[in-house]
Amino acid sequence: MKFGTLIAKHQKTLEEAIQANSRREYYAHWNESPSKKIYGETAAEEGESRFKTALQGKFTRLLQTGEQGWHGEESSPFGLANSTEYPMFAVEDVIAHANNARQDWQKLTPTERAAVLIEVLERAGTGNNFFEIAYATMHTSGQSFAMSFQASGPHSFDRALEALTLGYSEQAQFVGGATWVKPAGSAGNLTVKKAFRIVPKGIGVVIGCSTFPVWNTLPGLFASLITGNAVIVKPHPKSVLAIAVVIASMQETLRDLGLNPHLIQMAADSTQKPLTLTLSEHPDVNIIDFTGGAFGNTIEDVGRKHGKAVFTEKAGVNGIILESASNLDAVLDNLAFTLTLYSGQMCTTSQNIFVNKEGVLEGDKRIPFAEVASRLASKIDALVNNPKMSSITGAIQSELTYERVKTAQNLASTNKSVQVIRPSAPVPQAGFENARTASPLVLQADVAAADVYEHEWFGPVSFLIPTDGFAQSLQLLLRSLKSKGALTTLVYTTSAEEREQAEDAIIFEGKAPIALNYVGGIFVNQSSAFSDFHGAGANPAGNASFADPAFVANRFNVIGSREVVA
Amino acid sequence: MKFGTLIAKHQKTLEEAIQANSRREYYAHWNESPSKKIYGETAAEEGESRFKTALQGKFTRLLQTGEQGWHGEESSPFGLANSTEYPMFAVEDVIAHANNARQDWQKLTPTERAAVLIEVLERAGTGNNFFEIAYATMHTSGQSFAMSFQASGPHSFDRALEALTLGYSEQAQFVGGATWVKPAGSAGNLTVKKAFRIVPKGIGVVIGCSTFPVWNTLPGLFASLITGNAVIVKPHPKSVLAIAVVIASMQETLRDLGLNPHLIQMAADSTQKPLTLTLSEHPDVNIIDFTGGAFGNTIEDVGRKHGKAVFTEKAGVNGIILESASNLDAVLDNLAFTLTLYSGQMCTTSQNIFVNKEGVLEGDKRIPFAEVASRLASKIDALVNNPKMSSITGAIQSELTYERVKTAQNLASTNKSVQVIRPSAPVPQAGFENARTASPLVLQADVAAADVYEHEWFGPVSFLIPTDGFAQSLQLLLRSLKSKGALTTLVYTTSAEEREQAEDAIIFEGKAPIALNYVGGIFVNQSSAFSDFHGAGANPAGNASFADPAFVANRFNVIGSREVVA
Repeated sequence: MKFGTLIAKHQKTLEEAIQANSRREYYAHWNESPSKKIYGETAAEEGESRFKTALQGKFTRLLQTGEQGWHGEESSPFGLANSTEYPMFAVEDVIAHANNARQDWQKLTPTERAAVLIEVLERAGTGNNFFEIAYATMHTSGQSFAMSFQASGPHSFDRALEALTLGYSEQAQFVGGATWVKPAGSAGNLTVKKAFRIVPKGIGVVIGCSTFPVWNTLPGLFASLITGNAVIVKPHPKSVLAIAVVIASMQETLRDLGLNPHLIQMAADSTQKPLTLTLSEHPDVNIIDFTGGAFGNTIEDVGRKHGKAVFTEKAGVNGIILESASNLDAVLDNLAFTLTLYSGQMCTTSQNIFVNKEGVLEGDKRIPFAEVASRLASKIDALVNNPKMSSITGAIQSELTYERVKTAQNLASTNKSVQVIRPSAPVPQAGFENARTASPLVLQADVAAADVYEHEWFGPVSFLIPTDGFAQSLQLLLRSLKSKGALTTLVYTTSAEEREQAEDAIIFEGKAPIALNYVGGIFVNQSSAFSDFHGAGANPAGNASFADPAFVANRFNVIGSREVVA
Repeated sequence: MKFGTLIAKHQKTLEEAIQANSRREYYAHWNESPSKKIYGETAAEEGESRFKTALQGKFTRLLQTGEQGWHGEESSPFGLANSTEYPMFAVEDVIAHANNARQDWQKLTPTERAAVLIEVLERAGTGNNFFEIAYATMHTSGQSFAMSFQASGPHSFDRALEALTLGYSEQAQFVGGATWVKPAGSAGNLTVKKAFRIVPKGIGVVIGCSTFPVWNTLPGLFASLITGNAVIVKPHPKSVLAIAVVIASMQETLRDLGLNPHLIQMAADSTQKPLTLTLSEHPDVNIIDFTGGAFGNTIEDVGRKHGKAVFTEKAGVNGIILESASNLDAVLDNLAFTLTLYSGQMCTTSQNIFVNKEGVLEGDKRIPFAEVASRLASKIDALVNNPKMSSITGAIQSELTYERVKTAQNLASTNKSVQVIRPSAPVPQAGFENARTASPLVLQADVAAADVYEHEWFGPVSFLIPTDGFAQSLQLLLRSLKSKGALTTLVYTTSAEEREQAEDAIIFEGKAPIALNYVGGIFVNQSSAFSDFHGAGANPAGNASFADPAFVANRFNVIGSREVVA
């Protein structure tokens, strides 16, 4: 056995993660607090300093050579100057390196691979790195610093460990070899010595997105690695730095362990010359992980056509049913935070809120629709106007999203079915005068205006839709789940009967996850590693789930070798 | 919890099977011996008598109503008269029944489903049934009685239990629900009650084949059932009776347990009006298991086009490398048996034997190619001319296979690259004067004649191909694995270096299983439940493997429900 010391070193981590995956109670391997007590007195400063250096000039930390040029097109949604350039490689070179690197890797045992990969994560998951990754994430995605730290650091790394662990369990559920002895009566025993080899699919490509450059990349990366594949990460050209820092660290660890650092490569591209399709269609690429919008359908088609394993998270339309609640104020607090967090730029943020037009039942009292709407607007106002809270909006990652908010706001003047409940406005971000910001726009739309609300408005845009009541709200939500899919749904009802009806229909017919009666410090757009499956993998919003058995089982085969023992 | 008594009753069986799946040592739940001691004094007679009754008239045992007519077109390869007719159903009726039956089934827990399905198997796996199934298999597939009993009885049922168990394990590796408590400092704990629901894909269709009507049907059937789906079995129109007997028993058990018997339906068709494509393309069908030939490519296309989970076993070209051996006589005994068993009509039977043209090294002596060829021919003669052994050939299932043998034998007179080493001839089967039989045809083909040998000749046809030696043999085998795939390969070498080279290349490049130096009572065309993965799922011969994680993981999703606890 190779890597014996590493295996011993990380055995406890692996065992704990296996337990956590199974029990699905609260578990975190990395601490989510950007605190000096946890990550060291100097980590924040050092991370920031490394980040500032990285902003100026060429990113030379990758252990990949033979670049054909340098390119960078990131710009900070907070307005920070950035001239980072990344090496550009020829696809055939990257593929050749990956093919080379996977030869030894595929012959390690799952236990050896797990130990190496946990070491890779541990060395990348230090305070210095987490702070640098956080600043890099903030100034590409537009997330607040706090969110950047958690999402791209501890939470990402926990998702990586989760995928790694599930992939390990799927392989380790069978022995690697066995002696098979069949009693054959007077002829004596028949004895065969068998080995069961994990045969990876080959090369995996992970296509990153601009809003969560690390969180959405690590699960596929580690699912492919643990099952013996080499991986090429193709980041979004506007959101490279955070994942580049991660990959550079991982390559360094691989090299230090005597492994080929090309096992994990970065293939950055540009908006002008995108590589997503070229990489996905390459005959040596057998696995594709994709996060993004409708282009995911094209990638799914590539997978279908060429028989590749494809894992997607695409666009969806997340919905809420608001029918009754024991404490409407707590509900509206929760919704206001959900809609405001990262200005609605999470794939899990709710968009459509179906509300009984007669009002929301609180105890035995109906709170009129208009009052519900105006109280929700006030709650959002209170958040974004509170200097202690307004940073949660972050900035708007893309100019397109910024324009989309304006388009939505203009709908009210051109479409009779739409009214503005709460207009969007800038949200000043302390220290960043030029930040591109937009507070949540809340619109009211008629039930009949499905052409307006039944598609994704990515960003801080939501619709309150007055319905005939619970039955119609559920029917509309189901229709949307079937046609557009969703990553989250949320239902507020105090009726046990409605609760059961919604749960059954949303899970078994709509094939989407459901959250119920969320109030307090838990929000529907957050999902927790080792507990929540992220994405159902079963509706049009995407075919992948972090991390269910299908997310790892399709990345390898098991092939036997057997020899008669005389 | 439902079915508490059944769960307790079958707990030991489930636990043993879980262990067996993991350890992959010899394990069998059903005894493979058709012995009175095991299955009862009267089982053989009663089974035979039920079979004889079934041969005459309508098969009325299914608990499916609303047939649109009756049809039967089976004929015994052994020449027995058969006028059995099966009910024909409208596809939309069968689909509607399946959709109905799956509603309750999908809401049971994996443990409840496992208990029900083990009960279903136990009640179908009695002596009476096994003997009836054996006669039914014999007189549709042409297998000998002994093989029919084992393959369609105990071995099939073990494969069913294996798939059921793996499917159970994949679901049971996560808890069904958990209370998630996150410490939130001064704010107290955040508590969420979560449920993780197994959401099946919907309806599975299993397309059966003529040669192994039960063995190739049960794994997909039970993999889909344990993961919560309803299943429709579409048997080969020439090979219905054996699986009809199995399904009728299973429907009866479901009904007795208070479940909807339409959970497992049979949709027989006719050669004139086939249903394979209609069923596979139906929008409510989300899983397809297919066993057969090149038509599997069409079914894979249907799956790709519509995003269905498809599991295939198709045509392949199984190969042998014969380079060196410590005891050539034992090798040739083994090969003669392999080629003769069921007249080569197993998807696992070897076809191409690559032999060093300088001869096979035995110790330090080279046995010339011509001598190897003639000794193999003599070994086959000895088997088929031995009245105690000749029944192992069975009869030829299909007229097409019978004609294929003649076509192959005629090659020698039309193609200069081909010579006859051993001609095929009838093999009298005691008691069946009109049996359609053919002993193994062994041809010699030049290396250059890939157009002749590098495609499947299903039936008793094999080629000895003289090569420049081990390196070329391996190269030719790999080329064939990549272009046509295989379910088995077998390599004879006494060189440790060649052994390692072959194992690495065949498993990691050719992505096919390998057997090494088989002699004695173990044959490459046999695969053992709970130990051998059948089919690699990784080469062109098919994308499924009985039973690896992908075989079950793609039949369901896991979707969460979560509620805040105040």
